[in-house]
Amino acid sequence: MTAHTRPEALTPRPEELTPQEAREIFRKGGSSPTAGWCASHTQVNLITVPADWAYDVLLFCQRNPKPCPVLDVTEPGSFSTALAAGADLRTDVPRYRVWEHGRLVDEPCDVIDVWRKDLVTFLIGCSFTFEAALTDAGIPMRHVDQGRNVAMYRTSRQCRPAGRMRGRLVVSMRPVPADLVGVATRISAMMPSVHGSPIHAGDPGALGIEDLARPDFGDPVDAQPGDVPVFWACGVTPQAALMASRPPFAITHAPGYMLITDARDTDYRLV
Amino acid sequence: MTAHTRPEALTPRPEELTPQEAREIFRKGGSSPTAGWCASHTQVNLITVPADWAYDVLLFCQRNPKPCPVLDVTEPGSFSTALAAGADLRTDVPRYRVWEHGRLVDEPCDVIDVWRKDLVTFLIGCSFTFEAALTDAGIPMRHVDQGRNVAMYRTSRQCRPAGRMRGRLVVSMRPVPADLVGVATRISAMMPSVHGSPIHAGDPGALGIEDLARPDFGDPVDAQPGDVPVFWACGVTPQAALMASRPPFAITHAPGYMLITDARDTDYRLV
Repeated sequence: MTAHTRPEALTPRPEELTPQEAREIFRKGGSSPTAGWCASHTQVNLITVPADWAYDVLLFCQRNPKPCPVLDVTEPGSFSTALAAGADLRTDVPRYRVWEHGRLVDEPCDVIDVWRKDLVTFLIGCSFTFEAALTDAGIPMRHVDQGRNVAMYRTSRQCRPAGRMRGRLVVSMRPVPADLVGVATRISAMMPSVHGSPIHAGDPGALGIEDLARPDFGDPVDAQPGDVPVFWACGVTPQAALMASRPPFAITHAPGYMLITDARDTDYRLV
Repeated sequence: MTAHTRPEALTPRPEELTPQEAREIFRKGGSSPTAGWCASHTQVNLITVPADWAYDVLLFCQRNPKPCPVLDVTEPGSFSTALAAGADLRTDVPRYRVWEHGRLVDEPCDVIDVWRKDLVTFLIGCSFTFEAALTDAGIPMRHVDQGRNVAMYRTSRQCRPAGRMRGRLVVSMRPVPADLVGVATRISAMMPSVHGSPIHAGDPGALGIEDLARPDFGDPVDAQPGDVPVFWACGVTPQAALMASRPPFAITHAPGYMLITDARDTDYRLV
C-alpha cells in the first residue's frame, strides 16, 4: 500500500455515497445494480423515446398514474433533468437498454453514440422509494432479505390505452405478514407519486396470476408462514407497453440499474 | 295548478340532483353557476385546445401538478369523458368561454357550432372537491358564508414552463381560524389530485400579493378576527397560462360554471 492509496476502511460504501458521487462513478464507466445505493435518495426508471412518441407516452402515464408516476420529462434532445443537478442522462445510468422496433439491440453503459436531438426522456417513480419507508415501519422486505430482485407479474388487467401505447398492468408482489398489511397500505398510500397504495392483496388469481413461483420479471420470492401476497402497480408497466408498441427507437435503463436523483424519498411522502 | 304540474316542494333542489340530471338541464339550455350542485360529486375545470397544443398543455400540467391536476384527457375530436357516462362535452357545461388568439370572443351555453375534429379536452381538478371535505371537518368557508366566489390571486412565482405554455402560479385564498390551519392542511393534503396541501399560509407578501382586498379573479372575502390567510394552488393557473400563450383557438368553462362529473369527491381522497 502506498501513501496515495486510500485505506479500504475509509472508502465510502455505496449507501453512503452522495447521488452526485454515484453518478460520477457510472459516468466514468462503472456499472452496478443500484439497490441500496445512496440511502434515502430517490431512484427512478428511465424511458427515452423520439419526440413524436412523447405525447402517447405522457398520456398513457396520465391515464394510468398508479403504475406510471411521471416525476420529470425533459425537453427534446436535452440530457438534463430537474431531479439531478449536473446529471448527464446519456452516461449517468449504470446500464442502459437500446431498443429498435421493440427488439433489444444493446445493453451499453452509456448512450452517447446513439443519442439523437429528438429524444425525450421520462423519469418514472420506482418502488425502491416506498420500500425504504416500509422497512422503516418494521415491515420485512422478503426479497431483500433473500438477496433477490422483487417478483413482478403481468396481470390480466388492461391499462387504459393512449395513442399507440397499450398493454396490461404489471404488478410487483411483496409477501407481508397479515397483521402488517394495513400498515403497509397506509404508508404506501402516503406516497402516491411512487405507486401509492397496493392495488390488491390476497388473491393472485383475481389478477390473472396463475403461479406466484413463476414471475414474469424479477425473481420468485419465498413467503413466510402467515404472509399475504400484496400487489403494487409497477413501473415496468409503461416500459412493457412501450416495447409491445414497437417504436422505431427507444432507450431504457436496464432492470435494477436505476438513475439516482438528488431528490429525497421523503420528498414524495405526503405526510 | 294542473294534474301534470309537479308541486314546487317536490322539485329536487340543485344539491339533490344526480350529475346526469344536472347535465341534462344544461344540455337543454339551462345555465347556472354550479357551486353546491349535486352534493358530493366532483366538479372539474375544462380546457379544450387544438391537438397540436395538447402536448404543451399536458406537459405544463405534469410539471406543475399542484395547480394543474389532470383528471382526464379526451381523444382528439371526442366529446366524451371517462368521468361522466353519456356526457357531451360540447353541451353539458352550463356556460363556456370561446377564445381566439387569447381573446375572449363568446360566452355561449353550448359549443356545437364551433366544435372541430382536432380538439382535445383536459378536465382538471377543482377546489370545490376539497372544500366539501374541509366543511365536513368543521372549517368555516368564509366565502361561501358570505355568498361570494373564492378570492384568487396571481402570485410572483413562475410555473415551470412547457413548450409555448408559461405563466405565474395562481392561488386561491381561504381565511382559516389559526387553530384550524393544521387540520385544513392535513385534510387537503390527503387529496393531492385536487390541489393537495396549501402552498403557503400567513404572509401574502411572500407570494407577491400586495392587497388581499383586491383579488385578480373572484371576489374579495372578509376574514374574521384570528383568521390566517391560507393559499392553495388554483386550477385557474393553466387557463391563465394558456390564454397568455394565445393559441389560435381554445374553449374553457366560464368561471364557476363547471362540468359536473359522475366521480365522487371521496374518489380523490387517499384516506
